[in-house]
Amino acid sequence: MEILGIAVISLDGCLTRHDEPGSAFASKEDAAHFRATLDSCDAAVMGRATFDGERERILASLDTDRLRVVLTRSPDAYRDLERPGALEFTDAAPRAVAADLARRGARRVALLGGGQIYALFAAAGLVNRWIVTVEPRLFGDGTRLLEGKADVRLELVESRRMNEGGTLLLTYRVPDTDPPAAAADAR
Amino acid sequence: MEILGIAVISLDGCLTRHDEPGSAFASKEDAAHFRATLDSCDAAVMGRATFDGERERILASLDTDRLRVVLTRSPDAYRDLERPGALEFTDAAPRAVAADLARRGARRVALLGGGQIYALFAAAGLVNRWIVTVEPRLFGDGTRLLEGKADVRLELVESRRMNEGGTLLLTYRVPDTDPPAAAADAR
Repeated sequence: MEILGIAVISLDGCLTRHDEPGSAFASKEDAAHFRATLDSCDAAVMGRATFDGERERILASLDTDRLRVVLTRSPDAYRDLERPGALEFTDAAPRAVAADLARRGARRVALLGGGQIYALFAAAGLVNRWIVTVEPRLFGDGTRLLEGKADVRLELVESRRMNEGGTLLLTYRVPDTDPPAAAADAR
Repeated sequence: MEILGIAVISLDGCLTRHDEPGSAFASKEDAAHFRATLDSCDAAVMGRATFDGERERILASLDTDRLRVVLTRSPDAYRDLERPGALEFTDAAPRAVAADLARRGARRVALLGGGQIYALFAAAGLVNRWIVTVEPRLFGDGTRLLEGKADVRLELVESRRMNEGGTLLLTYRVPDTDPPAAAADAR
């Protein structure tokens, strides 16, 4: 199983423009790439705030084959929305979430943020690949790609310019990732 | 006159790895690029902390033709080190610093940080070009490229892979920069 960290940021590493929720600053080329990449995944993991920001869209698209797992400290508050196999809420640790997805046969998992979720999974060595869109913007203030300390070495796999303004799509692999078997052992 | 913001960051926009001073994480390819780019500039602007971190190296190389301007709230504390035309200390605002450099005939100014200095000059519309090295690392914690709010649109001029690991050298121009004449008028 492979976990892909998928994000769009400003050049200075902001997931949001100041305190605006969501990523309205992202280019349409990023939006198309995001949709296509997400469609190639059989599971998606996100934090509560990311879910709440996209709640209507997600609830309207639960008939795909993709399992959405939402990490929240209060899964009980979301029991009414739960649809096992399509939309689940959990307060489990990242390693346990990854091991559970592997056990259930997920092959390709999209990690959708936000910054705390990215940081938790990165620090635990669970992200195998980062697919990061860098928009040609500087914000200086906003949610950070990683909201929490980590120290991860990457290797650039591909760099692609997506439009005239210079949106970059950067794909990195993470050489030191825990192999999935080790993650499974840790349950 | 052109002001170049020159920096090396992690993919998530950190200038430093956690609380380590300096940029020891930067690749040797970045170091060579930085030296060559700095040598192409006839002035350099930096904050006090950046100067103090490189003090010995800077004091040993004052015989070049490059004027170094150090922004500090306490220029009087550095009077002993001052060498007019080579190393100067000022508490002037970014716009006044830029106008003074233009008046004195500077053509190409290297803006060397740190994050507060980058943010001040970016927010004032004074940076014409950003030359940013993105190392394939994630830190999650550290000084940010911009330590202060801004909202700047960039246009990617060039993207170049510098080594096998995938260090990227990204050059952006800033379409909305104040023309130097306007900056000079503001003195």
